[in-house]
Amino acid sequence: MPGGRRYALLVEYDGTDFAGSQLQRDARTVQGEVEEAARRFCGRTVRAAFAGRTDAGVHARGQVASLTLPGGHPPETVRDALNHYLPEDVAVRAASRAGEVFDPRREARGRVYRYRFVDGRPRSPLGRRWAWERRAELDERAMEKAAALWPREPVDWAAYAGPVPPGYPTVRTLRGCDVRRLGVSRLDVTVEADGFLPHQVRRMVGALERVGSGREETASPAALLRAGAGGAGPAAPARGLELLAVRYAPGTVEWEPEIGGAGDRGDGICDDDD
Amino acid sequence: MPGGRRYALLVEYDGTDFAGSQLQRDARTVQGEVEEAARRFCGRTVRAAFAGRTDAGVHARGQVASLTLPGGHPPETVRDALNHYLPEDVAVRAASRAGEVFDPRREARGRVYRYRFVDGRPRSPLGRRWAWERRAELDERAMEKAAALWPREPVDWAAYAGPVPPGYPTVRTLRGCDVRRLGVSRLDVTVEADGFLPHQVRRMVGALERVGSGREETASPAALLRAGAGGAGPAAPARGLELLAVRYAPGTVEWEPEIGGAGDRGDGICDDDD
Repeated sequence: MPGGRRYALLVEYDGTDFAGSQLQRDARTVQGEVEEAARRFCGRTVRAAFAGRTDAGVHARGQVASLTLPGGHPPETVRDALNHYLPEDVAVRAASRAGEVFDPRREARGRVYRYRFVDGRPRSPLGRRWAWERRAELDERAMEKAAALWPREPVDWAAYAGPVPPGYPTVRTLRGCDVRRLGVSRLDVTVEADGFLPHQVRRMVGALERVGSGREETASPAALLRAGAGGAGPAAPARGLELLAVRYAPGTVEWEPEIGGAGDRGDGICDDDD
Repeated sequence: MPGGRRYALLVEYDGTDFAGSQLQRDARTVQGEVEEAARRFCGRTVRAAFAGRTDAGVHARGQVASLTLPGGHPPETVRDALNHYLPEDVAVRAASRAGEVFDPRREARGRVYRYRFVDGRPRSPLGRRWAWERRAELDERAMEKAAALWPREPVDWAAYAGPVPPGYPTVRTLRGCDVRRLGVSRLDVTVEADGFLPHQVRRMVGALERVGSGREETASPAALLRAGAGGAGPAAPARGLELLAVRYAPGTVEWEPEIGGAGDRGDGICDDDD
């Protein structure tokens, strides 16, 4: 769009009622809603690019999108206008000016996801949209040990990927995998990497859950890296997963208003964890 | 029900789609769902008593109910059977044997409620079912000061009550009112008393919100106690409120499984608060 101004958007959504982030024909998607809101705001068709593809049912607190709009509006006007048109399960938390050719996917230097468990208790009505509920109590020490055995260097994660096209690059660098018990029946797994393959996080969490519930050894998740494409076993349910943050080089995006940045982790809905 | 066995139930629900806890004709209520699950389990009409009445949209993590069932089942069987029949937005977290005439409302010695804010940011899709979202950043210091001025002794709280019948006792003893910021845009108000009048918690939170947003002085909420019946101003929205716990004398209920007890606060769905 010649003459337009490019913006980056920090996007939050409740993924429960979406068929995923990426545009699909005849399905309700986050991209579709953002583009529709932009169209209503500026009166013409707008394409939005997203930093990460999230599956149906996966939530986001720190998804990053980008679009180019006419009119030269300040970022806070774009934020407020889009929120005016967006439905209640998706919102722009913050907006920033971005470079003319800013690509939120290619320029991302890292992604942080969090997976939530509610364990050791009957099903949880207040957790059913946001967590994987396990009746058994998970052994977080065993899960921690298993997570520590995954390499923190570039390796082939194809075993943990869902179906990918031929020739798709499957080397990724895991930077961290943190297992934390928060309160009596709440367990979080937070993972960070340069990027993740399709279904990778949910298959990693699935492997950790099998360790935590005593069905597999702590050495198993790391050993599964050698299992061959897609061999790492089933994925954890989408509803427990949330895209927490996308990381960029300093100065790439400057959120207006500043609300802790895309890496902010303390702004949402939670229990006391003290 | 002669010959039956009496149980206490620790009940969790997402109040969004309920017309409140208390049975109403032609409306979906928590009591109605619990009684229907009990009827399907034991094949006869069962009445359930609840410790606290919660309004439409108010959630609970630690509601306590009681009912008498035939068959002499152990508490964990009752818990699992009721969960089998209950819809996904209500569940029995734990069950306990109870005395034959156990009345969860009359025997309660205290109630704990929590109110959640998401503040200082645009609306939150992940918070919209569980919090009151304020665009402005709330001043938690001012709110703390205001809360500290409410007396911690038996006083007449009629000013903070919704409509109550003539002669309704309106003296209550506030034991605590804790205002805590958790992360960048999350603020919780936790209150405990021997009991609360209808709408009292939400009107207390409404008064604190007016202080936190700078529209009233810190002395105002305490001064409003003298405002006369219902004079304390509007109530905060129901969706931010949750019944966290009901307290009993030691030994009254012994939850099976033990999951931290009714006062447990760390078992649900939350962000990191560190």
